[in-house]
Amino acid sequence: MKKLLSVLLLSSCAINSSYAAPKNIIMVIGDGMGPAYTSAYRYLKDDPKTDLVEETVFDRHLVGMSSTYPHKVSGYVTDSAAGATALSSGTKTYNGAIALDVDKNPVETVLEKAYKQGKSIGVVVTSQVNHATPAGYLAHNESRKNYNAIADSYLDKGWKTDILLGGGWKYFLRDDRNLVKEIEESGVYYIDNYEKLSTLPKEKPIFGLFAKKGLPWALDDTNTHRLSTMTKAATEHLLAQNNKQGFFMLIEASQIDWGGHGNDIVAAMGEMDDLAKTMEYLETFVKQHPDTLVVLTADHSTGGLTVAANGDYKWDPSIIKAMKKSPKAIAQQLTTQKITKQRVESLFNFELNEEEIAQLISAKKSPHQSGKRNMYADKKASAEQQALLTEIKAIINKRTNTGWTSTGHTAVDVPVFALGDNREKFIGLKDNTDIAKTLFNLLK
Amino acid sequence: MKKLLSVLLLSSCAINSSYAAPKNIIMVIGDGMGPAYTSAYRYLKDDPKTDLVEETVFDRHLVGMSSTYPHKVSGYVTDSAAGATALSSGTKTYNGAIALDVDKNPVETVLEKAYKQGKSIGVVVTSQVNHATPAGYLAHNESRKNYNAIADSYLDKGWKTDILLGGGWKYFLRDDRNLVKEIEESGVYYIDNYEKLSTLPKEKPIFGLFAKKGLPWALDDTNTHRLSTMTKAATEHLLAQNNKQGFFMLIEASQIDWGGHGNDIVAAMGEMDDLAKTMEYLETFVKQHPDTLVVLTADHSTGGLTVAANGDYKWDPSIIKAMKKSPKAIAQQLTTQKITKQRVESLFNFELNEEEIAQLISAKKSPHQSGKRNMYADKKASAEQQALLTEIKAIINKRTNTGWTSTGHTAVDVPVFALGDNREKFIGLKDNTDIAKTLFNLLK
Repeated sequence: MKKLLSVLLLSSCAINSSYAAPKNIIMVIGDGMGPAYTSAYRYLKDDPKTDLVEETVFDRHLVGMSSTYPHKVSGYVTDSAAGATALSSGTKTYNGAIALDVDKNPVETVLEKAYKQGKSIGVVVTSQVNHATPAGYLAHNESRKNYNAIADSYLDKGWKTDILLGGGWKYFLRDDRNLVKEIEESGVYYIDNYEKLSTLPKEKPIFGLFAKKGLPWALDDTNTHRLSTMTKAATEHLLAQNNKQGFFMLIEASQIDWGGHGNDIVAAMGEMDDLAKTMEYLETFVKQHPDTLVVLTADHSTGGLTVAANGDYKWDPSIIKAMKKSPKAIAQQLTTQKITKQRVESLFNFELNEEEIAQLISAKKSPHQSGKRNMYADKKASAEQQALLTEIKAIINKRTNTGWTSTGHTAVDVPVFALGDNREKFIGLKDNTDIAKTLFNLLK
Repeated sequence: MKKLLSVLLLSSCAINSSYAAPKNIIMVIGDGMGPAYTSAYRYLKDDPKTDLVEETVFDRHLVGMSSTYPHKVSGYVTDSAAGATALSSGTKTYNGAIALDVDKNPVETVLEKAYKQGKSIGVVVTSQVNHATPAGYLAHNESRKNYNAIADSYLDKGWKTDILLGGGWKYFLRDDRNLVKEIEESGVYYIDNYEKLSTLPKEKPIFGLFAKKGLPWALDDTNTHRLSTMTKAATEHLLAQNNKQGFFMLIEASQIDWGGHGNDIVAAMGEMDDLAKTMEYLETFVKQHPDTLVVLTADHSTGGLTVAANGDYKWDPSIIKAMKKSPKAIAQQLTTQKITKQRVESLFNFELNEEEIAQLISAKKSPHQSGKRNMYADKKASAEQQALLTEIKAIINKRTNTGWTSTGHTAVDVPVFALGDNREKFIGLKDNTDIAKTLFNLLK
């Protein structure tokens, strides 16, 4: 009896640790979202009137961290393609590779494995849908830069997604090929505005493109929480398939990274807020569908963001809270309009001092003298607009005391969050490839 | 029977989660050790000859992260005093406070609680023993800067430590008071060199001071792993007490923070290596004494360290590996000796190019023109030595592509590591005060 009991006791604990696979798997990637981003977001959202700092949705679900280094041929700092390949396939590869190993052989991705198993498939991103991260789950190519070839492959290698949402008209409506038309002809329902998300036909796969390339910054979009809106529509569409095998879904908050590249804390925090809303929705989803696993991590950190800088023990997010438009949108407006105190304060939504306004006027007047050109500024923008954007970000970084060391990526470990079925599998320090390997095990 | 079984099953799982308190608790603090430090250390220790990056002792024991913000009166960026107070007492306070709340009332620390319970007490640090972090566990003062008063209180408020090791002659051998003599007269065995650590009398409390203030950089010390040597001696002395109540121990790798303040990646990694050796020793200790809990975290991150910078997807630790002396030690040598290619390369232990050597010569010749003075340089050092130190660090940061945004602290969340008995209590995102609260619960 004692032996029987101890066997039962052991097996009970094993059952409690839920070794059974989740029906639905939702992989969420905050592109570029290193630990400074989730920390900064907490202080941004803090209510200054309360004694303590309020917990964020990220805080509730942190389970560990992940290392992000690519294959050694590319050193220790990954790009988003090698990062996506590690997270999608469990394979370290060279920077730039889309789901190929270092010898350029295709590697199976968790999305492909889930598709083969008969799961429904959803992909929702705020970049173009053929950008490095979604491509790392859906395609195989020797270079992330082959945008057209990657777009082609989505149809030519067999359409896999029950719902695919993001940006990218440029790559799907081309002079040499009207991929949208071809995709529609294959039986897919195409939409090109967010309104249509509320009336999707259940019986057809959905393909939604809402911008020429990436979507506008969350702050400037018609829907500042477009990732959470798209995610809600996608999960509902996937559930409507009534698939006994469940679904696999990839969600990417693609533009946190772009905020980091541009050293733009306001745009980056706007994207973080959209991701937070998405995670809050997924919290509710998991409560209603406890057979669902949600994993959130980043592929790397971007910009060398630091929460305080310049020897000063201070980070002040109050002006970020106040701002309703991105620095890019403000720069665009100030390029065509006269810079007055009134106009500037209406655009920034906080009071600028005389020195700051003079800086803006000077940047517009002598754009080539106003510091080095930002490599991540819109190359088609005028010199005036680029100089204004650089000045606006300088004012914000100084006011908030935000630090940046790079317009590229860094190798700091990134946080890992998990909720729902089998979340405990992600506790501790994981390598990015371990995350894919664990998902493959859960797909067995 | 079914009901009986399910009760048994539930209780078994509870037992497996080990609610019983650990006999020994070892709290380890890597001062300033934000996530970029543990990430950088992994890549520093990587063997370039193998395919994968080797796991570090930190990787094996990561369980989550911790937020570090102080009481709101001090904003979101903590100093080491408020950080120590949060970790020692579970109370948010103002920057500068030593185990006082924001109204300057003393708050009980986990060390004091353990002492009251009859546990043996050990404290081992690489700073002066009355520096902010150890003081935050052992003393109560309205300002960390009151070094003499804090030193006095160690004796005057009742000697609590069975072993106390670190630096600080300056504060214990003073014109106004010979505290060392008084402490000896109270029955404590005093030592002032590392050799004595191997022959400690079991029957007496031990007090060891090995430097005027903080110990030399690990890289420059007679024992480059002095923290692990002191830790080993301290645990052996504590075990030798044969105390049925076990022991509480505080260990601090104090000078990771000082490397960060100085934007000195070589010195910081030397301190990380000493901490890694200490953790490896504690791994063995926990295996031999499984009723021991070890928790490691940081009080904050320092310097805005980023692993890569300047838009370049590269971090190259090879010269850090090569270097056998700190930049400070090299600057001291070059101040008094002629700067020749041969001498420089013998000191750096890697080949410098002509431009770099010219930079050093120029800094020594015109110290006041060689960039801004580093606020964390030794204020007693000559202008030449300070200028040389600044140039040496600039060469190293450029070669390795290391980024820094500050000579102060930042508010990024820090990693939390735990091993041994009740380690699972530290999984997830904790606030720094939660760590103290959990330890208090384990001391009940």
